[in-house]
Amino acid sequence: MLQPELDKIVYFQSEEPRVYESAHPKSLLHSIVEDGKALDSLKNQHVYSSDQFDRNTILQLLRLAAKYEANPERFSAPLQGKILISAFYEPSTRTRLSFESAWHRLGGNIMSITDRSTTGIAKGESLSDVAEMFNSYGDCVVLRDSNDSSVKEMMDALRIPIINAGNGLDEHPTQALADLYTIFKWRPDLIQTKPENPIKLCIIGMPSRMRTVRSLLKLISVFPNAFETVTIVANEVEEKIFDQGQKEQLLNVGLNIEVTGGFSNAIKSADVIYINAIAWEGNTFKEYGADYKLSASSPLKAQAIVLHPLARGEELCTSLDDTSHNWYFSQARGAVFLRQALLTCLLHRTDRVLDII
Amino acid sequence: MLQPELDKIVYFQSEEPRVYESAHPKSLLHSIVEDGKALDSLKNQHVYSSDQFDRNTILQLLRLAAKYEANPERFSAPLQGKILISAFYEPSTRTRLSFESAWHRLGGNIMSITDRSTTGIAKGESLSDVAEMFNSYGDCVVLRDSNDSSVKEMMDALRIPIINAGNGLDEHPTQALADLYTIFKWRPDLIQTKPENPIKLCIIGMPSRMRTVRSLLKLISVFPNAFETVTIVANEVEEKIFDQGQKEQLLNVGLNIEVTGGFSNAIKSADVIYINAIAWEGNTFKEYGADYKLSASSPLKAQAIVLHPLARGEELCTSLDDTSHNWYFSQARGAVFLRQALLTCLLHRTDRVLDII
Amino acid sequence: MLQPELDKIVYFQSEEPRVYESAHPKSLLHSIVEDGKALDSLKNQHVYSSDQFDRNTILQLLRLAAKYEANPERFSAPLQGKILISAFYEPSTRTRLSFESAWHRLGGNIMSITDRSTTGIAKGESLSDVAEMFNSYGDCVVLRDSNDSSVKEMMDALRIPIINAGNGLDEHPTQALADLYTIFKWRPDLIQTKPENPIKLCIIGMPSRMRTVRSLLKLISVFPNAFETVTIVANEVEEKIFDQGQKEQLLNVGLNIEVTGGFSNAIKSADVIYINAIAWEGNTFKEYGADYKLSASSPLKAQAIVLHPLARGEELCTSLDDTSHNWYFSQARGAVFLRQALLTCLLHRTDRVLDII
Repeated sequence: MLQPELDKIVYFQSEEPRVYESAHPKSLLHSIVEDGKALDSLKNQHVYSSDQFDRNTILQLLRLAAKYEANPERFSAPLQGKILISAFYEPSTRTRLSFESAWHRLGGNIMSITDRSTTGIAKGESLSDVAEMFNSYGDCVVLRDSNDSSVKEMMDALRIPIINAGNGLDEHPTQALADLYTIFKWRPDLIQTKPENPIKLCIIGMPSRMRTVRSLLKLISVFPNAFETVTIVANEVEEKIFDQGQKEQLLNVGLNIEVTGGFSNAIKSADVIYINAIAWEGNTFKEYGADYKLSASSPLKAQAIVLHPLARGEELCTSLDDTSHNWYFSQARGAVFLRQALLTCLLHRTDRVLDII
Repeated sequence: MLQPELDKIVYFQSEEPRVYESAHPKSLLHSIVEDGKALDSLKNQHVYSSDQFDRNTILQLLRLAAKYEANPERFSAPLQGKILISAFYEPSTRTRLSFESAWHRLGGNIMSITDRSTTGIAKGESLSDVAEMFNSYGDCVVLRDSNDSSVKEMMDALRIPIINAGNGLDEHPTQALADLYTIFKWRPDLIQTKPENPIKLCIIGMPSRMRTVRSLLKLISVFPNAFETVTIVANEVEEKIFDQGQKEQLLNVGLNIEVTGGFSNAIKSADVIYINAIAWEGNTFKEYGADYKLSASSPLKAQAIVLHPLARGEELCTSLDDTSHNWYFSQARGAVFLRQALLTCLLHRTDRVLDII
Repeated sequence: MLQPELDKIVYFQSEEPRVYESAHPKSLLHSIVEDGKALDSLKNQHVYSSDQFDRNTILQLLRLAAKYEANPERFSAPLQGKILISAFYEPSTRTRLSFESAWHRLGGNIMSITDRSTTGIAKGESLSDVAEMFNSYGDCVVLRDSNDSSVKEMMDALRIPIINAGNGLDEHPTQALADLYTIFKWRPDLIQTKPENPIKLCIIGMPSRMRTVRSLLKLISVFPNAFETVTIVANEVEEKIFDQGQKEQLLNVGLNIEVTGGFSNAIKSADVIYINAIAWEGNTFKEYGADYKLSASSPLKAQAIVLHPLARGEELCTSLDDTSHNWYFSQARGAVFLRQALLTCLLHRTDRVLDII
């Protein structure tokens, strides 16, 4: 017999409406006209950097992601018979499972490597030889490594596509695509060439030290008119905040970049707040901006949304979880569909999911 | 050319009849009338404790398990397209493979976590955040953790079902269901409301320290008339053998509980002997009742059967393996089918395998 | 906007012709008449040693491998619904992924064990009990262990087939089958009973200390007329180079065995050079013949091919990779198809892929 106290805890609501659940992709889906040809450019291309994506390719990727998210059960197995090599030499359960979930939903099979110490690499095998092995065993590689150069070394020898899922301090392009996907789901009007109401984006994080921030800045450079201002909040001199030439590049595309140490003022006026405190460097991490903490009592605009690449530290209080500012859970959820879209393109299977190609 | 000595070792009999193979589920299957509605109660329910199951739900679960076991090839893919997150923060190859085998046989896909040290949890991520991640990536979670409270912490944030596959010293409900399944396969008459020949159950193990014993005692409490006596063999004072209030609960449902340190006498009269010596506590274990050892020369009744949750230690001699007392291998084998039955219910796919729903 | 330097690195040629890619299996496929019955001998047989394979079985296995390699997309899922237990107690990403890729291409599901330390074995569970567990959970086992005797201990209790994927210093039969497959793809005429132009095989490696060499020598013993000479290059006395009785066995089947420390002379006249320097022993390795190094400037015959079981050390220079001597990449690639062929036989599914059975 079920005890009353158990009754309370074992039952759950599978459809429980949570704030971030309202982040429905339908509006974005309707805002972009399908153009499968734009995705052809992703064939025979590794995914190394956010720099690789032009405006049209990005929009079509986001559209396909929205299509998957709007009807998650519709496309059962476009990658049937395909094998993913999921190589996480720098362990990351969160990112690994996001990619693997995406691949499984597309009907493919997976071989995982979750521990570098037991691989041939640890015994001195070259990444080039490992890549050659991957050519024979799989159809696509997802690689995370704490070493910046690993993905490039592999790319050189691969004849199957590889996705950079975070290479040291450098880049994490699919995270940035997921970030952008979230912003455009929230405000599909921003994809217009000249949006009427561009937004204020506030980034709490270090462009020079965080791969997620670096990759995101590259992507928003493709949509400069969507952003009235981009404010970087950091208590550092600009030489440390930016890589050499990084700020100039952002200014050159027309972004209005501001830098401030004034946390409260920055978040007060922001429409989108992107926060991250932890930069993974190899097997350890450094914390930046530990003084900057967001919570439900932070002075946010009523309509502002908060993004975070997760996992979170103390910079993002759980008191925000049940507020309408919480779009970080939607961001994590959407990343799976974004990755489904990208993988479908890399594996040349858009013909199975697009109407017009 | 095959050498004679190789000839002896490389060939095997796939159908080799072993004693425990006679544990055919057909009799049990015939003894229970299908009633799919009883399984509806498992929808939107986590599986945390043996306390959750009422008599009718248990019988229908066991019936579905027997149906799977009787025709293992018949139902190919009721969970096609579904993703299991198999999270074994406390490593256990045996239990992990049992669940994963069950899931694969149902046609689903799996993402495994076999090492807590590389997860975000090890870096300070909350279980609630991990659960939120699981909501986005999978359709069901199986969790084993050495920490009692982990499963509850996750349940709170999950919108997909989670199965407690062992939480510290607390519970292991699917093991107990598999134990009961074995007993009822052996003696289907015991499922009657008032069995004519109730059995003597002898448990060598500590109800207060072993999750498998705790969960089993809760389940047999649902069938008190099936057991003439339940004898706990332990060389301890009752305050240590039982949790506070545990014995009273068992007595209250009508079980005839006996406690003894007299091993030989207890096993002499028992019909079912459940033995386990090792209680895992975190990353290490304690041994209880190391003096109690069963072997082919133990004074067992001719028809008595022996159960053990495995892996075994010295308490269970391999000399019993080829005797008719060995139902522990059948117990392990049956656990896969029992888990198939439970997973089918939790994933709302009984319509694909039941005749009447 | 894609920067020019990125343009160079992110695009790849999926069809880039590399020397070893010309190792097409079509000629070998045409040279062997299909005879499915010969593969029936593999039913109910574990794969423990190269000694198990007779001439006809080997040829039909290689034919089926060639059939898979010639049309990799043709046979989608002969092992659908079957579960592989991939148990790598001695970690080896390369061999594990080769087997898992083979299994996935056949449409089956996989449960992996990549770390012995978290298994019941580490806690004292017997291999016999583990094997009994595998009987219940899967349809086939692939085992690598640094302990020679593990595979035999499991075989004794298994009622599903197990493949020895390397047992300590002893054997690695599927590697040897892949080696032979490569040689016969290169020169299909060698499968004739009495080839007109037998080849000179030069092995740089220790028959007594390397499982790959030991297994290969057993296999070429089945085709003695294909080899004019077999030269073992090692700087040791013969008592150390060979196991007791090993050389006599090779001579008895008619092989012309030569032993030399003269590396340069040996490779000058060789048609096939098999090189390996590292012998894994438990969790560490010993290097043999570190002075013997092959590179593009080695005095090889123009038509000579080089084989290596990989991963390589300094004994095999990457300068050979882009020469026509490089058949070691083809060897690694072909191993997947060879394993597909073997697994199809062990799982009794040849009827799904053969024309005449």
